[in-house]
Amino acid sequence: MKATLIYGPHDVRFEERDTPKIIKPTDAIIRTSATCVCGSDLWTYRGINQVTQPTPFGHEYCGIVEEVGSAVKSIKPGQFVIGSFFASDNTCPHCKAGYQTSCEQRELVAGAQAPFLRVPLADGTLVPTLGAPPEDLIPDLLTLSDVMGTGWFAAEAANVKPGSTVVVVGDGAVGLLSVLSAKQMGARRIIAMSRHESRQKLAREFGATDIVTERGDEGVARIKELTNGIGADSVLECVGTQESMMQSIRSTRPGGHVGYVGVLHGVNLKGEDLFHTHVWLHGGPAPVRRYLPQLIEMVWNKKINPGKVFDLTLPLSKVAEGYRAMDERRAIKTLLFP
Amino acid sequence: MKATLIYGPHDVRFEERDTPKIIKPTDAIIRTSATCVCGSDLWTYRGINQVTQPTPFGHEYCGIVEEVGSAVKSIKPGQFVIGSFFASDNTCPHCKAGYQTSCEQRELVAGAQAPFLRVPLADGTLVPTLGAPPEDLIPDLLTLSDVMGTGWFAAEAANVKPGSTVVVVGDGAVGLLSVLSAKQMGARRIIAMSRHESRQKLAREFGATDIVTERGDEGVARIKELTNGIGADSVLECVGTQESMMQSIRSTRPGGHVGYVGVLHGVNLKGEDLFHTHVWLHGGPAPVRRYLPQLIEMVWNKKINPGKVFDLTLPLSKVAEGYRAMDERRAIKTLLFP
Repeated sequence: MKATLIYGPHDVRFEERDTPKIIKPTDAIIRTSATCVCGSDLWTYRGINQVTQPTPFGHEYCGIVEEVGSAVKSIKPGQFVIGSFFASDNTCPHCKAGYQTSCEQRELVAGAQAPFLRVPLADGTLVPTLGAPPEDLIPDLLTLSDVMGTGWFAAEAANVKPGSTVVVVGDGAVGLLSVLSAKQMGARRIIAMSRHESRQKLAREFGATDIVTERGDEGVARIKELTNGIGADSVLECVGTQESMMQSIRSTRPGGHVGYVGVLHGVNLKGEDLFHTHVWLHGGPAPVRRYLPQLIEMVWNKKINPGKVFDLTLPLSKVAEGYRAMDERRAIKTLLFP
Repeated sequence: MKATLIYGPHDVRFEERDTPKIIKPTDAIIRTSATCVCGSDLWTYRGINQVTQPTPFGHEYCGIVEEVGSAVKSIKPGQFVIGSFFASDNTCPHCKAGYQTSCEQRELVAGAQAPFLRVPLADGTLVPTLGAPPEDLIPDLLTLSDVMGTGWFAAEAANVKPGSTVVVVGDGAVGLLSVLSAKQMGARRIIAMSRHESRQKLAREFGATDIVTERGDEGVARIKELTNGIGADSVLECVGTQESMMQSIRSTRPGGHVGYVGVLHGVNLKGEDLFHTHVWLHGGPAPVRRYLPQLIEMVWNKKINPGKVFDLTLPLSKVAEGYRAMDERRAIKTLLFP
């Protein structure tokens, strides 16, 4: 098959590689219906995470089960399934506690930007839909594999409740879907921090009540101004840099919550800075498996439309252009059809 | 009056200084019934926090109201009162949210190791008892000014619930009272980390079910061993160093909580280390004012006996020996009577 490999910084290729096969009896092979490019892969694309050899790329997927290993019990060939970017057994104590991305057997799913994909721990990882989805729901369902579940986790980690005042730091797909999540959880006020007109527009469509374009100290000052000097109840950190993390902490009221889901890079939190803020901190790789059944139902019933984050659709063979467009911020998120 | 001043590292003196007076109309003057030495003052005593001039010392107190300023409404002369180490108005948004140590008007109470003490924001800060307490309850009530409320906050910040598995890092007065707090909140298992026999004994008396003497990597390994490899639901960090903080985070299960109340010194949390732990972090200077009414009632009804942490009682004039005994870990906590 032809599939996506990353060779190094800014070097993504679509070329021949072996079609994946069942390796362990708990595996499944999926024929992907759609896949996409993730903001978190831009760290690698930009050379911040190192690549030592040509590596199958992509971790967001949905599709039809082609084949299952001998130990797979609940997942069947022919089912339409969605799974998390981390495979998990869904039976260990961490999975049972709802933290499938800390599963004792967790394994990153890699190589999803391809017509076929091997998914480990199929019974734990994959969730089937009630039948083949209508074509127009596929982009929405695809987002549940990562970005929509990640936005949902950000909002839960930041304790968003009916009536909350929420700030979302970051206007990538996860930031925008954090806005949507906060809205679904009943936030009264949702302040999106964004400088890009098309993203501001989508943020408003998803439920943002205010837009703040300032960053850093000025951003914090603006949030304080908008909240009578108090700070926000919940801040959803969807970037992962030192600046965005400190901006998030400093925008939160004492006793308020920061939910962080941007993959942290080069962040150092000084104890002295943290101690007097009285914020709650929670985050990490989102356990999107926890939310799949609930979010599939919400998409199926057209209660949410997270697929709107895709503003560029390309055939999989044009995957390199998909990365370029996101790297240059010409696209929020690239949808790819094999 | 004669009172306590710190001049520099290991230099605490009991000498003549002006008796405090009402400065602002919201002040009260207290005749202290008892005061004590706090573990957090050892940072200053050991020269880690700098002292630039002779400074009135001590921040834990209870006593009889001697005089109130013209704007004080609810607190009356003659009442027996207890207050937090931070004065707070108890009316600002942060106070209303239960974070009185982040009060918009917060002010550290200083100079409590003296026969008389000025307490700012008297109406917000002080809580009167229902009458003069019996003599034997005074040590218990005194702990509510800081260490008992701090232990209670550690347990709340670490989300201790009925049935929880709890680890307490640190066997000072706050650590021991964290054990007592976790027990009151219904923890099923309480693992106290301590190497000192007398402290282990008191920890067991307060409700510890297990004692772990190992620290660092070995301490984490021992906690994992005791929890079937899972980690604790709640870890209460009552020290404040890099080692104790990282030990706490690494002893917690994914989705578990770290409540940190040890004043953080030289702590740096790396984002990369934090991101994959999936722990909840909350802490800071305990809002003990929030807990005063509830804890006073529990002491009054002899439901808790936090005064047991005092294992050395001295007249106030011997305050220097009180510091020495705690610095050398000969005493857990020194009680001082003017």
